[in-house]
Amino acid sequence: MIIVPGSKSQELAYKVSKALDVEMARVEFKRFPDNEIYVRILSEVNEDEAVIVSTQREQNDAIVEAILLADALKECGVKEITLVAPYLAYARQDKLFNPGEAISIRALAKIYSNIFDRVITINPHEEHIKEFFTIPFISGDAVPKLAEYVKDKLNDPIVLGPDQGALRFAKVAAEVLGTEYDYLEKTRISPTEIKIAPKSLDVKDRDVLIVDDIISTGGTVATAAKMLKEQGANEIIAACVHPVLIGDALNKLYFSGIKEVVGTNTFSSEVSRVDVSEVIAKLIKEG
Amino acid sequence: MIIVPGSKSQELAYKVSKALDVEMARVEFKRFPDNEIYVRILSEVNEDEAVIVSTQREQNDAIVEAILLADALKECGVKEITLVAPYLAYARQDKLFNPGEAISIRALAKIYSNIFDRVITINPHEEHIKEFFTIPFISGDAVPKLAEYVKDKLNDPIVLGPDQGALRFAKVAAEVLGTEYDYLEKTRISPTEIKIAPKSLDVKDRDVLIVDDIISTGGTVATAAKMLKEQGANEIIAACVHPVLIGDALNKLYFSGIKEVVGTNTFSSEVSRVDVSEVIAKLIKEG
Repeated sequence: MIIVPGSKSQELAYKVSKALDVEMARVEFKRFPDNEIYVRILSEVNEDEAVIVSTQREQNDAIVEAILLADALKECGVKEITLVAPYLAYARQDKLFNPGEAISIRALAKIYSNIFDRVITINPHEEHIKEFFTIPFISGDAVPKLAEYVKDKLNDPIVLGPDQGALRFAKVAAEVLGTEYDYLEKTRISPTEIKIAPKSLDVKDRDVLIVDDIISTGGTVATAAKMLKEQGANEIIAACVHPVLIGDALNKLYFSGIKEVVGTNTFSSEVSRVDVSEVIAKLIKEG
Repeated sequence: MIIVPGSKSQELAYKVSKALDVEMARVEFKRFPDNEIYVRILSEVNEDEAVIVSTQREQNDAIVEAILLADALKECGVKEITLVAPYLAYARQDKLFNPGEAISIRALAKIYSNIFDRVITINPHEEHIKEFFTIPFISGDAVPKLAEYVKDKLNDPIVLGPDQGALRFAKVAAEVLGTEYDYLEKTRISPTEIKIAPKSLDVKDRDVLIVDDIISTGGTVATAAKMLKEQGANEIIAACVHPVLIGDALNKLYFSGIKEVVGTNTFSSEVSRVDVSEVIAKLIKEG
């Protein structure tokens, strides 16, 4: 087996190859003057199996790059190709919200199934997208790694999901931390005011870990953090698997009174401090 | 049949639908905050056959957009989908120039063949790429349209291809104009000097049309134009099908003494004055 980096996952691919103790390919990435992507496998590849590690940070470029890498690897004689997309782009458009739309992840799953032999990802937004693939689709959970990271930073925290859908992440993190969990409920208290508070628990004088799969605009988490502070919360950390953090999200989050925002390196960002290479290595080996 | 525009081909798709006298779909294009592409077919589609017109101007975005449009159209019940990519991206990486590379257009042809039922393009860089497709691949020639455009602008011009490979374009244009053609030959006259001149013809006191399929950096054409001027050429027009015109290409070309640079609307640019919608309409109807 050989590990092949995508252009935006050179560090992650290196760590995965180290965790597995297998070779990493030397790959040249460049752009033609007209901006077309160029890839070239510089290593001599004798392996039958290759694993492309490519987080889909700039989605469309990453998708086309992976398509080209697969072609180059096939040309090198590789027989089985796994795509590791730790952050899987377009996974949130996973059903028809309105007639006339595309089910984007279905369209891409069809393409991946046509080119690759296996797809591995971390915390896809919804597990049911697996059904769109006609090849093995394996997903891992990075929430325990996030929980381990905050272990020494918070004192017996309450773990909260920003909404009911995120309760499952809070549960996983709370188990690692040996503490309580809940989710945040939004109540309209007047035409202009809402209240956000844990469904059952009280945050007064407690440290809080807010945990979710993705933080995008950060709006909900920032508003929640402000209110938790008003309710007497002590230190707050906001943790997510995929720190997409669009625009001013991070600035907004720090202004809400959050002590630390942290994410994993499934998606490269300023706060991608939690390494998932071992989670990925395990999936590659056992998946 | 219904014509479906790509986001960068809304004008061209409109003209194609008018030339064919068929419906054009109303399509919503937007981006999610994380930059993922969103498409939605707003028209009610009852047709069995759809034709996506999508010039691949920003290649990777256009490729993913076409994949999503195809999914949305299938969801609307469309049975046969044609992709019209008047400018077909990645067509120049059509063979292994070095070991370890991808044959990019082969990789994409595989995907297009998986999703679409037919691909139509204008002047692909090499005709042999047809072999990478397992669906009908139809190409048209826009050079006659370029020749017609310059008819009243030049007086009995010599038509020149910038190199031997472009002689075929010069021949087509010369036939339309009823005039002579040749190609430009580069001769090294000293370690630091080259001479560029027509292989056989003399440009002294003659108008010149330089014609090629793509002008990218414009370097060769600009150098050639300067030398033709030194050789006594009168007015020079540089025409190409796909005005890719990277960076300062256009500025460079106008500084070389060229009177006019012109291209077609297969690739949107400042000089895309020649309309190929009728050429495309004919290919859709007869192809």
